[in-house]
Amino acid sequence: MTDVASRELGLGFLGIGQAVARIFQQYPDMSTLPYRVVAAADTRSHSLARFATEFAGRTYTDAEQLCADPSVDVVYIATPPELHREHALMAAHYRKHMIVEKPLAMSIDDCTAMVEAAQAAGVQLMAGHTHSFDAPVRAMAELVRSGDLGELLMVNTWNFNDFNRRPWPTSELRSTSGPVLNQGPHQVDIVRQIVGGVARTVRASTIWDDVRKCVGGYTCHLGFESGVSATLVYDARAFFDVAELHSWVAEDGGRRSPQANQRVASNFAALSQNPDHLEVALEAQKEQGRYGAATTTEESQELWGYSAPGEIIHHPYFGLTVVSCERGAIRQSPDGLVVYGQNGLQEIPVARTMRGRAAELAELHRAITEDRPVQHDGRWGRATLEVCFAILQSAYEDREVVLSQQVSL
Amino acid sequence: MTDVASRELGLGFLGIGQAVARIFQQYPDMSTLPYRVVAAADTRSHSLARFATEFAGRTYTDAEQLCADPSVDVVYIATPPELHREHALMAAHYRKHMIVEKPLAMSIDDCTAMVEAAQAAGVQLMAGHTHSFDAPVRAMAELVRSGDLGELLMVNTWNFNDFNRRPWPTSELRSTSGPVLNQGPHQVDIVRQIVGGVARTVRASTIWDDVRKCVGGYTCHLGFESGVSATLVYDARAFFDVAELHSWVAEDGGRRSPQANQRVASNFAALSQNPDHLEVALEAQKEQGRYGAATTTEESQELWGYSAPGEIIHHPYFGLTVVSCERGAIRQSPDGLVVYGQNGLQEIPVARTMRGRAAELAELHRAITEDRPVQHDGRWGRATLEVCFAILQSAYEDREVVLSQQVSL
Repeated sequence: MTDVASRELGLGFLGIGQAVARIFQQYPDMSTLPYRVVAAADTRSHSLARFATEFAGRTYTDAEQLCADPSVDVVYIATPPELHREHALMAAHYRKHMIVEKPLAMSIDDCTAMVEAAQAAGVQLMAGHTHSFDAPVRAMAELVRSGDLGELLMVNTWNFNDFNRRPWPTSELRSTSGPVLNQGPHQVDIVRQIVGGVARTVRASTIWDDVRKCVGGYTCHLGFESGVSATLVYDARAFFDVAELHSWVAEDGGRRSPQANQRVASNFAALSQNPDHLEVALEAQKEQGRYGAATTTEESQELWGYSAPGEIIHHPYFGLTVVSCERGAIRQSPDGLVVYGQNGLQEIPVARTMRGRAAELAELHRAITEDRPVQHDGRWGRATLEVCFAILQSAYEDREVVLSQQVSL
Repeated sequence: MTDVASRELGLGFLGIGQAVARIFQQYPDMSTLPYRVVAAADTRSHSLARFATEFAGRTYTDAEQLCADPSVDVVYIATPPELHREHALMAAHYRKHMIVEKPLAMSIDDCTAMVEAAQAAGVQLMAGHTHSFDAPVRAMAELVRSGDLGELLMVNTWNFNDFNRRPWPTSELRSTSGPVLNQGPHQVDIVRQIVGGVARTVRASTIWDDVRKCVGGYTCHLGFESGVSATLVYDARAFFDVAELHSWVAEDGGRRSPQANQRVASNFAALSQNPDHLEVALEAQKEQGRYGAATTTEESQELWGYSAPGEIIHHPYFGLTVVSCERGAIRQSPDGLVVYGQNGLQEIPVARTMRGRAAELAELHRAITEDRPVQHDGRWGRATLEVCFAILQSAYEDREVVLSQQVSL
């Protein structure tokens, strides 16, 4: 098994923008993974040039050529979500395994087509990237599964941040209904990872963001077949910051400034002063967060909530989550978990092991080399997206939505 | 108007137990109110004796005699909830105004009978007592109503405390489905006070308390006709303590010990060691919290979460409530509000004016002397109770419940 397990797989990136910049900048773990970075495709020539220099990899401006490249075993699909279906089917056609960035696609039908294509081709489709891979979330889920605290009863989670004030081009932000399809997958995945079972019902409402003229957040009751329930709350409009309840730890585990929300909101307000130039200015700031950007500054990193790698000294944090079990409650602390049990509280340190996209790549490698399914396959990702769409539907129709595409862990 | 407004009203207490002990011990404001405490009825002779000494008031063992007493203008009904209907109808029969402790009654039909009896008799029926009278809650509601932050979008509120581990006799705790009918009125009233409008739908789940063998908490999505939504979360099983997120301020504004949850849980666990004696022991500890109790100690006060009057240096706190408006968010701070607006955060001190039951009595006095309705009349109380019952129904039927008895502020 050792030979197979350590076999290096060729990794090709379809779209080397913001997500991929995170992979290369933030995850020292990446270089330890049994992958060779062999190819990238993008429409941005300067990022391809940078990629060629940094990885001595092949570069393409055509997605299909990358998928056809025989040195590519795994395609990392980080193109805009509306292209995920096309690119996933392309990867499957060339019998390549794939990771697809969140949101998995822009409709349930698209997800189904992708799931079926991967299955027919006999390749792995992993639904990435979400905070459910954060070590504390995994530790919470494992503690629940251990049964030490008895049965799971409910999970409640809040996130209040500045997502809608980050310099997203307007069409991009609106295409995901603000945070619902972009950040919702994180929050829904965290809850589903902890609960494990099959969700059944969604009752949700959305709030309007009058600045970005799109959805700005939501409230959601999520019911599971087991009787476990969850509430999920998100407000992305840069007023209250949930980091205030968590020692000002940032989403990526760095230090969150108490002024960050306001600075990000002020940046958007300043750009809005010149509406004729707004979209160009937003696109320019978005470009600064992408891989291979000609210019990037500490300020532009803060606009996207990114800490410098050396500043990341805690676990990532995606909001206040309290897990209620029969014999205790659990919540995340900056460096692990706090368990409130029958004998008072206990701090449980959690090692800062491999995280985020690096952890996903590691799991995918094991799945491929050991020929077993990934935990977050296409069906898992479709189920998470179904909950996110149900949030929109429930809010729009002002009634409960019954889910039909759910799977358990 | 001054003469009428300052006219002293005769106040008679029907049931001088735990609620009334709070009134007399905790509220120095009481003595400044334009009421004369003239009579009390109870079945506990020692508390009547104490009352006669303290207030030189008339005492009765029969509720009807108190209602018939011509010196009584207002009947404060603090008997067990299952007697509220009978006692409210009795008070109305003798044309006495009344305040009824929460829960208003044990069914919607009972509430309706009480509302109709009060209306037919031309007397005021005030639905007390809830934390929606706390000054910070009132200040949040006023700030929302002022429009300074634009339209209200959502309200989210969490309470995690030890309610189910307090030494409630088992039948009493179960009769209110644990916190749902006893603490739910606080939480629902807070949300309704802030939102103001008419609620329409409830989707909720309850959690089981395996120690007390009754409901231990709930999750709830509450939808309003205006499109505003709220989530309400309660876990009463003494694990996580929401005071941890609020500088350890207690429910009554005193100092909450980080060990309080555990001490209250340990007390119950210790009593449970002797199941043959459990109910007697619980009743004895309950008695220690009542007015006129022969013995009471600091420890027994802590079991009920009561601070010594001198220790109450902050506003009362009924959990983490974040109010999201179009142009800002609001939450309670120990001494006022924090407003997160477009220009960062602002601390707004809120004066520690008259609170809780004293504030209710003051409002009722104004309503009677100025012949205008109270804000929290019987219909208001019925609407709050309808939401609490809907939480139970939605959980039991595992579906959304549409409300029919709702009123706006």
